[in-house]
Amino acid sequence: MGAINLGDKFAKFSDHWSPKIIAQLNRLHIKAVKLKGEFVWHTHADTDEMFLVHSGVLTIRFRDRDEIVRAGELYVVPRGVEHMTYAAEECELLLIEPAGTVNTGDAGGDKTALNETWI
Amino acid sequence: MGAINLGDKFAKFSDHWSPKIIAQLNRLHIKAVKLKGEFVWHTHADTDEMFLVHSGVLTIRFRDRDEIVRAGELYVVPRGVEHMTYAAEECELLLIEPAGTVNTGDAGGDKTALNETWI
Repeated sequence: MGAINLGDKFAKFSDHWSPKIIAQLNRLHIKAVKLKGEFVWHTHADTDEMFLVHSGVLTIRFRDRDEIVRAGELYVVPRGVEHMTYAAEECELLLIEPAGTVNTGDAGGDKTALNETWI
Repeated sequence: MGAINLGDKFAKFSDHWSPKIIAQLNRLHIKAVKLKGEFVWHTHADTDEMFLVHSGVLTIRFRDRDEIVRAGELYVVPRGVEHMTYAAEECELLLIEPAGTVNTGDAGGDKTALNETWI
């Protein structure tokens, strides 16, 4: 298997809020996802979650503040901390988290991504 | 803690083959490292190792082939697979691997990075 080109992976899909698995590191999945608009407030009780922005601007809302993450920046949301992602314009990012992590955490709802697939 | 800007982190050091920890995700460390020249053949028996190239060109040599990883590309070396990194010109990359992973794996020697520090 050769190198995985992030631009090539992001070119393969256009839907929002639907993470695609592009690599595995031990028990973690590396996922490519495109965001636009507002997600749901949720918490991952058992895992930290890493966001690495590839293009655009990501806002991670916490109950007490917003954090801005731009292309070439990363942010780790600690386990147990409620958060919500938001992007005014389309934002492409990598998510790194344990395989099986559900995007909506404890919240559920219609933005829950079922059957995440490899691309 | 705000977003972690990769360019800012790489601007903080200039030594080669000396990974600096920039973030933690569960039991993993995210490390920034600059390479130039040839590393040593080694194996990590217990963990995969992920390389995400930030600038330059990384060659990962295996016993049967070379893999080329450019800026914006990633590569996961599976556990137990002997490899050696090489960069003709300086290459900046992120390493993602469990905290405590030794850069030279089973090989040891004078390129072993002791006391990896946070920047």
